[in-house]
Amino acid sequence: MKRLLLALLSLALVFAANADEGMWLFNQPPREILQSRFQFAPSDAWLEHLQKSSVRFNSGGSGSFVSADGLLISNHHVGADALQKLSTQEKNFLRDGFHAQSFAEEIKCLDLELNVLDSIEDVTSRVNAAIPKAVDASTAFLARRKIIAEIEKESQDKTSMRSDVVTLWQGGAYHLYRYKRFTDVRLVFAPEQQIAFYGGDPDNFEFPRYDLDICLFRAYENGKPATVTNFLRFSASGPKDGDLVFVSGHPGHTSRLLTMSELEGLRDETMPFNLSTLKRLEVLLGNWSARNDENARRARKLLFSAQNARKANDGRLAGLLDPDLMNPKSKAESDFKTKLVGQSQYADALAAYDKITEATKILMAQSRRHALLEGGQAFNCDSFRIARTLLRAGEERPKPNGERLREFSESGKTSLEIALFSEKPIYTDLEILTLSDSLTFLATQFGANDPLVKKVLAGKSPRDRAVELITGTKVRDVAFRKHLYEGSAAAVTAAHDPMIELARLVDPDARALRKVAEEQDEIKQQAHAAISRARNALLGTSGYPDATFTLRLSFGTVKGYEEDKKTVLPFTTLGGLYARAKEMKNRPPFDLPILWEKRKSHLNLKTPFNFVSTCDIIGGNSGSPVVNRAGEFIGIIFDGNLQSLPWDYAYNDKQGRAVSVDSAAILEALNNVYGARELAGELLKGRRIQ
Amino acid sequence: MKRLLLALLSLALVFAANADEGMWLFNQPPREILQSRFQFAPSDAWLEHLQKSSVRFNSGGSGSFVSADGLLISNHHVGADALQKLSTQEKNFLRDGFHAQSFAEEIKCLDLELNVLDSIEDVTSRVNAAIPKAVDASTAFLARRKIIAEIEKESQDKTSMRSDVVTLWQGGAYHLYRYKRFTDVRLVFAPEQQIAFYGGDPDNFEFPRYDLDICLFRAYENGKPATVTNFLRFSASGPKDGDLVFVSGHPGHTSRLLTMSELEGLRDETMPFNLSTLKRLEVLLGNWSARNDENARRARKLLFSAQNARKANDGRLAGLLDPDLMNPKSKAESDFKTKLVGQSQYADALAAYDKITEATKILMAQSRRHALLEGGQAFNCDSFRIARTLLRAGEERPKPNGERLREFSESGKTSLEIALFSEKPIYTDLEILTLSDSLTFLATQFGANDPLVKKVLAGKSPRDRAVELITGTKVRDVAFRKHLYEGSAAAVTAAHDPMIELARLVDPDARALRKVAEEQDEIKQQAHAAISRARNALLGTSGYPDATFTLRLSFGTVKGYEEDKKTVLPFTTLGGLYARAKEMKNRPPFDLPILWEKRKSHLNLKTPFNFVSTCDIIGGNSGSPVVNRAGEFIGIIFDGNLQSLPWDYAYNDKQGRAVSVDSAAILEALNNVYGARELAGELLKGRRIQ
Repeated sequence: MKRLLLALLSLALVFAANADEGMWLFNQPPREILQSRFQFAPSDAWLEHLQKSSVRFNSGGSGSFVSADGLLISNHHVGADALQKLSTQEKNFLRDGFHAQSFAEEIKCLDLELNVLDSIEDVTSRVNAAIPKAVDASTAFLARRKIIAEIEKESQDKTSMRSDVVTLWQGGAYHLYRYKRFTDVRLVFAPEQQIAFYGGDPDNFEFPRYDLDICLFRAYENGKPATVTNFLRFSASGPKDGDLVFVSGHPGHTSRLLTMSELEGLRDETMPFNLSTLKRLEVLLGNWSARNDENARRARKLLFSAQNARKANDGRLAGLLDPDLMNPKSKAESDFKTKLVGQSQYADALAAYDKITEATKILMAQSRRHALLEGGQAFNCDSFRIARTLLRAGEERPKPNGERLREFSESGKTSLEIALFSEKPIYTDLEILTLSDSLTFLATQFGANDPLVKKVLAGKSPRDRAVELITGTKVRDVAFRKHLYEGSAAAVTAAHDPMIELARLVDPDARALRKVAEEQDEIKQQAHAAISRARNALLGTSGYPDATFTLRLSFGTVKGYEEDKKTVLPFTTLGGLYARAKEMKNRPPFDLPILWEKRKSHLNLKTPFNFVSTCDIIGGNSGSPVVNRAGEFIGIIFDGNLQSLPWDYAYNDKQGRAVSVDSAAILEALNNVYGARELAGELLKGRRIQ
Repeated sequence: MKRLLLALLSLALVFAANADEGMWLFNQPPREILQSRFQFAPSDAWLEHLQKSSVRFNSGGSGSFVSADGLLISNHHVGADALQKLSTQEKNFLRDGFHAQSFAEEIKCLDLELNVLDSIEDVTSRVNAAIPKAVDASTAFLARRKIIAEIEKESQDKTSMRSDVVTLWQGGAYHLYRYKRFTDVRLVFAPEQQIAFYGGDPDNFEFPRYDLDICLFRAYENGKPATVTNFLRFSASGPKDGDLVFVSGHPGHTSRLLTMSELEGLRDETMPFNLSTLKRLEVLLGNWSARNDENARRARKLLFSAQNARKANDGRLAGLLDPDLMNPKSKAESDFKTKLVGQSQYADALAAYDKITEATKILMAQSRRHALLEGGQAFNCDSFRIARTLLRAGEERPKPNGERLREFSESGKTSLEIALFSEKPIYTDLEILTLSDSLTFLATQFGANDPLVKKVLAGKSPRDRAVELITGTKVRDVAFRKHLYEGSAAAVTAAHDPMIELARLVDPDARALRKVAEEQDEIKQQAHAAISRARNALLGTSGYPDATFTLRLSFGTVKGYEEDKKTVLPFTTLGGLYARAKEMKNRPPFDLPILWEKRKSHLNLKTPFNFVSTCDIIGGNSGSPVVNRAGEFIGIIFDGNLQSLPWDYAYNDKQGRAVSVDSAAILEALNNVYGARELAGELLKGRRIQ
């Protein structure tokens, strides 16, 4: 046990020795910790059931099955992407909510893909064996991309399942994840955004909270509700203070195992640049939205995402600038390096740090250019993203599978086509707005006299050029996209579409930047693998890798905290919602939906509404089920508090908390606000009674 | 006349030959144009009366006397600074408005200084004669600063008037401006911000508009309403479509005579950096304001300023990126340079362009560092600004007048002390917010490992350091400020105030950056003077210099325009306000103040509300009176439309327009909304009937 704790301390910089840290792999769960600290020993069946009840939303988020009839629950803000795409000026589901009272009324989402993790296989040796020794980074990268594509294709052909090779430990391991895929997903229920996101941006990442951040979908197969074996039993009562709870979900990304030079690159370059971009976008969309209701509706999801990311990144940057976080990390790194000195078997690990520093320098030096050209930030609109996909599909698809850009590999084909052929609405005015703004940004970043900028703007102002491109392109027509995609590179060229031609114009530069990034990433992966080997040898193999938007298990306790010398209780209640609205004079975003005003007297105001726990989560965990020892659904993650934002770099449960909606509040709202008794019944019974 | 038009075309890049362009000096008015185009010959008395009725708000803006009893009118958004400083949580004058029904109820503003231009004297030869020939830029700068301080001090001693030497034509001329100064200024009337700034940020810089953007003050002398000889007669009826109108006000800054290299520096460096700073501040203050009403009140003026500047600068940047604006400018510059080639008497003018390019490069290379350290953007809070003033006052005041930093010269003493000893409220929470944010920005700009950043943060996070500095400093106590200011540099040192010590820590770097900027500006001034001489010799001396926040005369016609193939009429009406509110469903910021809802039936809805004209204005002109041929007050400038924003670089009246409140609407609102009949009476009669 001592050895384990030491490992945790050194690796992940835990602040409290008994902290409930970890985003654990389902194939390497924290059995020892759970046993020793909580006397809990999850069976293999318990784990498998939770794994197979958990759902990944490919649009970015988590969820879980909660009925044998394919009903699944996630957050409203995870469902928002689907809700936005289904909404029109007449029917604003995102704002006003939705309730299908029968299967027939459930609406098919336009491009939503769900994944359920079926199995994990360690393919590290096979991947590494395919990389020739002593070759340059470019050759190694190409070989690695090739073997990964090969493994994925082979698995897919064999199992018909979505098959992804996942890079863990920054390159220390490669696991093959196989998913059951659902592509017919229908909207069942959404509350008003006003209550799902009660308190709006001001209360986002705060606690106490009063948010019904849920959205119900149903998976269909062959045109009928899917019959699922693994789903979570819904608890009517939720957790109690001090309970051990678990979160099963898909944390998107953490950076806890990065070296100091990588963290400094994030702190001094990547994060400030991203924040500046997010704030620019927030101002642009916020002000455009304020001009009228329809603008606001069209930009709603984009604006929310920008605000949410801005607040999260502000918190992360604060973590990177906090000596209380960075100094221990720095010390741990130098302590570990000291251990390696003079031991020839770890020479590669010691040298790895310098290699990572060097690669990071190269990456940071080109990072803005990369973000603008390869990341597409200079051409921020759906039309450009589609145009580039069409251009590159024409070039990549004729190549052998293993030699294509990763996103065009055979195993990614289904997902790519779902996104590319989506009938989601694309608004010309919004496209012109964001493209004008991003072309302006491009010009200011490179200077308006830069030869590439001149070619991109073609002698016009950013606004005039954006109008010309957006009104001239045909890529918003799905039939046109299919025609080009199913044609050849020659067909794409023959179309003479202005947006595709823009994508072609910048593609040599964009691909060159990508090539450098891929090579440097390969160098870093090899270096991290060396560090990983030394770490395992010196500190043991326990622990968990950084988050990778793959399924992880977290555990923790329901527990309040101290803030500004006051105790923050772990639970809020429905009654607290009404008190908050009164305190804030019902001023938006603290106003209540009309229905909630009306139904107040029908509600048990003592019902727990939201609660906090010490579970280790991060963005991507949104919508993750919270379960108790019995594996029952007792809540749903929807946020972390402000103090949890630096968890990207290091977990600390002094004040940091995960925030969930209590299962009891979900039932109370469905029954007594929305009159959705058939859904409440389905949750409680685990199947739909028609 | 042809010669004059040629000059205008070449110099200021007028787009239409008959455009109503120009921010004319009162000592060089556009008599020929007014005569030939409008058959109007303003007498010297007409000009002097208008000049002496015009008022400069030192807080940034314009206004005019409108009664013999010292009543003066400006914009609500100019008065906002005073309104914010006078407001408390209990009495929110900025939001709710104010109405003094008697002299006794008028409230003294905390630090408002008004200037009325009394005379102008050309001191160009005296300034230039004092600069030794063939010395380096540093020596020339010091000599220039010395002679200017000397001229100002001498004038002030002789006349007791505020005396400013103004640099015109970027260094082509130096004029001594003498002002009568008012420092006892009292608030008389302000409408609700909701109607003053109806439509808020979304409608800012737009037209049609429906804003009662006015604020009434009264100048006092010896504790009594000042008796003024020059004030504008108030017209009950406002202008008519097609009328010739004049604007007398203080445009803050234009960049029309900059060389291409200077414009490119603005476009590629200064403007993007400023915009990024403004958007960061807008997001910070906007979200803090949304948390509760008191936050919103405290940050109101700052947030408005950030939003207003952001929208203006976005428009300016669009101008700089518009080939329709930049290409003619570029052509005019090369045409002019072609004229100079091979003529030895203009060799200095031709060489001047390269000197400006070189100086601009040096300035741009240090511009961010300059903005952060010398501009103080790294320490964005009032406490720092006060602390630095105290530090530098201690160091500068013992020096001879001509050797001090410009802002500590004898002639600036009164203004400096009014600002320094202001009892305006400074909010600890808001100070911590903006200081944390700006320290974070500093760290990201220089990198957190930068030695200066490390010294500034002193081993703490930006937030912790901000809390320490703001809670530790005593500079918010005016008595403390006076004590240090009246003491010596030693007293400042002995105080060991943490914020002053921070200012001391960065002062060597800040002063070094300033020194470079002053030297390069001196080089540019000499270069522009050479260009100016060549221009006068080759193209004639008519024209107007770039705006310098000094009194200028503009003229134009009341005139609509075409936009998106629709005609925009020049006038809106009070009735249009109610229609707009209905169209926007009374959603903020399109909701009406309760009083305006209530009093609707008492209003003549046909009353003209706002109107546009082709008068050449820019920021700083806010609050400028609009007068007719008879010199009567017929309206008040409060905005330009979006298309006028590039006027910073070139005037163009195809769509660009100045936006004013009609004098008729002012009377109608005072009488029939606010029941302020005594004020309406005072405006009409030109004196107060008690």
